[in-house]
Amino acid sequence: MKENIINLACDLIQRPSISPHDQGCQQLIAQRLEKLGFSIEWLPFNDTLNLWAKHGDAAPVVAFAGHTDVVPVGDENQWQYPPFSAQIVDDMLYGRGAADMKGSLAAMVVAAEEYVKTYPNHQGTIALLITSDEEASAKDGTVKVVETLMARGENIDYCLVGEPSSAVSLGDTVKNGRRGSITANLYIQGIQGHVAYPHLAENPVHKALSFLTELTSYQWDQGNEFFPPTSLQIANIQAGTGSNNVIPAQLYVQFNLRYCTEVTDEIIKQKIAEMLKKHDLKYHIEWNLSGKPFLTRPGKLVNAVTDSLHQILAITPKLDTGGGTSDGRFIALMGTEVVELGPLNSTIHKVNECVSCTDLGRLGKIYMQMLSNLFHSSKDHISEV
Amino acid sequence: MKENIINLACDLIQRPSISPHDQGCQQLIAQRLEKLGFSIEWLPFNDTLNLWAKHGDAAPVVAFAGHTDVVPVGDENQWQYPPFSAQIVDDMLYGRGAADMKGSLAAMVVAAEEYVKTYPNHQGTIALLITSDEEASAKDGTVKVVETLMARGENIDYCLVGEPSSAVSLGDTVKNGRRGSITANLYIQGIQGHVAYPHLAENPVHKALSFLTELTSYQWDQGNEFFPPTSLQIANIQAGTGSNNVIPAQLYVQFNLRYCTEVTDEIIKQKIAEMLKKHDLKYHIEWNLSGKPFLTRPGKLVNAVTDSLHQILAITPKLDTGGGTSDGRFIALMGTEVVELGPLNSTIHKVNECVSCTDLGRLGKIYMQMLSNLFHSSKDHISEV
Ligand SMILES: [Zn+2]
Ligand SMILES: [Zn+2]
Repeated sequence: MKENIINLACDLIQRPSISPHDQGCQQLIAQRLEKLGFSIEWLPFNDTLNLWAKHGDAAPVVAFAGHTDVVPVGDENQWQYPPFSAQIVDDMLYGRGAADMKGSLAAMVVAAEEYVKTYPNHQGTIALLITSDEEASAKDGTVKVVETLMARGENIDYCLVGEPSSAVSLGDTVKNGRRGSITANLYIQGIQGHVAYPHLAENPVHKALSFLTELTSYQWDQGNEFFPPTSLQIANIQAGTGSNNVIPAQLYVQFNLRYCTEVTDEIIKQKIAEMLKKHDLKYHIEWNLSGKPFLTRPGKLVNAVTDSLHQILAITPKLDTGGGTSDGRFIALMGTEVVELGPLNSTIHKVNECVSCTDLGRLGKIYMQMLSNLFHSSKDHISEV
Repeated sequence: MKENIINLACDLIQRPSISPHDQGCQQLIAQRLEKLGFSIEWLPFNDTLNLWAKHGDAAPVVAFAGHTDVVPVGDENQWQYPPFSAQIVDDMLYGRGAADMKGSLAAMVVAAEEYVKTYPNHQGTIALLITSDEEASAKDGTVKVVETLMARGENIDYCLVGEPSSAVSLGDTVKNGRRGSITANLYIQGIQGHVAYPHLAENPVHKALSFLTELTSYQWDQGNEFFPPTSLQIANIQAGTGSNNVIPAQLYVQFNLRYCTEVTDEIIKQKIAEMLKKHDLKYHIEWNLSGKPFLTRPGKLVNAVTDSLHQILAITPKLDTGGGTSDGRFIALMGTEVVELGPLNSTIHKVNECVSCTDLGRLGKIYMQMLSNLFHSSKDHISEV
C-alpha cells in the first residue's frame, strides 16, 4: 500500500498544478477509481475542475475531501530539488504539494481503492470530493460542489479532509473545526492639505491612531473548550500621495479576524462600529466574511478517527480548531461531521516542501481503518494490504 | 507702471513654463534689463536656467529673487479660462503662475527698470536672481546660484523674494523667515506570518502604534516670538502584501517636521531615536533635511519693506514665518537679510489661479519704494512713474 501511495503522490507532484489548474491530476485519479466501480461525476465551474466520485449508494456517505492545486513555488532557486521533480531522499518526498496535499490525496485514493477491493459489498457509500481550487479564490471549488449536492438533496454524513493537520508527528493533531474568518476594508476620511498648514487639514493617520490602538488591543474573548481566542491582525495599511509635504486625504486599513464561537460576525461588526464612533472618525467600511466558525463535536466521526490513530499508531490525537481556513467550512454547511487529518504541516507553502514516505504509508492505513470503524462499528485492525 | 507690469505678467503667463522649463521667460526679462544697462549672467545647471542680472557695482547689493517656473495646471477642464491664456476679467488676471509668481516677477522687473531710469546713478547695486526651478526639486536653481556667488566672494546684502505672502489683502503679511523642514523615512521591522498564526509572527503595525501615538502627540515646543510651534505630520504610511491573510513584514512611515528655532535637526533626530528605543522597535531610519530654519530679525531690510507698505498702502504688515519653504532659505545662507513680499496666496497651486491687476501695480510701487528706502535712507515717496 505504501509503495502504491508514493507512486501516485509522485505522479501528482510531477504535474505543476498551480491553482486553479489541475494539469490532469483529477483525470488520473478518476481513471483509477472508475476501474474499481466508482461512479465519476465532473463538476467544473469556470476555471476550476471538480471531481465527485462515489462507490455505493446507501447511507451513510463517507467522503474524503481534497485538492489537486498547489501554491506557487516561490523562489525556485531556493529549492534543493526542482519543485515538480518529486525527489525522494532519506524517506522524504520533496516537491510543491508534497504535504499540501498531494501526499494525503494519494493516501486517501489508495485507501478508498484498497477498502473497496477488500470489502466490495461494504455498507454505506465511499465518496471523494476533489477540487482544483482550494488555495486561491476557492470560489468555484468545493463551495460550488456542495451547493450542487445540496440542490439535488444529496448528503455527506462524514467527511475527512486530508489537509496537513499534524504538527510534530503524524496524527498528533486532528482538526475538528475552524475559526471563522472575516476581513474589513476600512477607509478613514481626513482632509488633505499641505504639511506646513496642518490647521487647514485633518490628518487621517493621526486621527486613527487611538482607534487602531483600541482595535488591536481589544480582548474579544478567552476562547472556549474547542476554540482558541478570537484574534485580529492588520494585514494592510496605506495613506499618502507619495509626496512628503501633503497631508493625506484618506487612510486605508485592512484587518482580518479569526474568530471563535464566543462571538459572531454580527457582534464583531457592531463592536467595531461602536469603536469607530467612539473615536469620532468619518469612515466607510466594507466587510467580507470568508467563513463562519464550524465545529464537529466529539461523536461518531471524531471517534472513528481517534480510534483509528490509536489502532494504527497507538497515539491519542489532540483535537484542535486553530490555524487557517480550509474547505471544511463549506462542507460543514451541509450539517456534515467534518474532521481534518493529514501529514505534518511544517513545510507547507514554503520552499523545500516535503513529506515523510513512512507517514504517507501510515496515513493510508489510518484512512482505511477510519472507513472500517465507521462502516463496521468494529474494532477490526487494518493490517498490511 | 501698472500697465507695463500687467503686459509683462501676461507675456510670462502665456509661456507654459512648468518646472524646470523656462520657455523663454528669462530671455524676455534679460533683454529688457540689458537695454537699461544691467549686466546679464546666465548660470544654467543641468535642466535649470538661472539668470543673475545686476545694475551698479557698489555695496549694498539689493536683490530681487523669483522664479519663472510654475506648477502643473491640474485638471484643465476645471479652469474657467485656459491656464496659459492670461485672461483679465474684472481686474483679475487669470492663469497658472499669475500669483505664484509671474505677477510679482513682472512687478519686480518693472520696479527695477523704473528705479534705474529714475535714478541712473543710484547707490549700491540692484540685482535680480531668477531661477526656473523653485517649484520642483529646486536642486539646480537658487541653491546653485548662491553657491556660485559665495565661491567667487560675491555677496547679497538685502533680498526681497516675491513669493505670494499676502493672506487677505496686499501687504498684510511679510515673511521674515521660514521654519526648517526635515523628513524621515522610517522602516519598522516585524516578522511576516499568517494571520491565523499570530504567535509565530510580529505585526509591525501593531507594534508601532504606541510609538506613532507618542510621535504625533509630542509637543516639541511652544514656538517663540518669531516662529509658530514645531509641527509634525505623517505624510505616508504603508504596510502589507495586499493579501488579507499575511501579517506584514515591515511598516513604512514617512513623516515631515516643520520646525522653529527652539529645536534643531539634531535635537529632533535624537528625540525620535529615543522614542523608537523606548517603544522597543527594530527600525531603520533615513533623514532628509530640506532646509534649516532662518530668520531675518527686524532691521534695515524689514524696516525698508514695512516703511514702504506704510508709505504706499498706509498699512502695517504682520511679520510671519509660517507656511512652506521658499528659495529664501538658500539665500539666507549667505548671511543676507531676506524677506518675502508678494500678492495674495489664496489661489496658488489651484485651478483658476489669479491675481489682482490693481495689486500688481501697487506691488511695483512698493518694491520701488523699498529700493528708495534702502538706498537713500530717505522717506521719499515713489509716486506714479
Ligand atoms: Zn491544502
Ligand atoms: Zn513660488
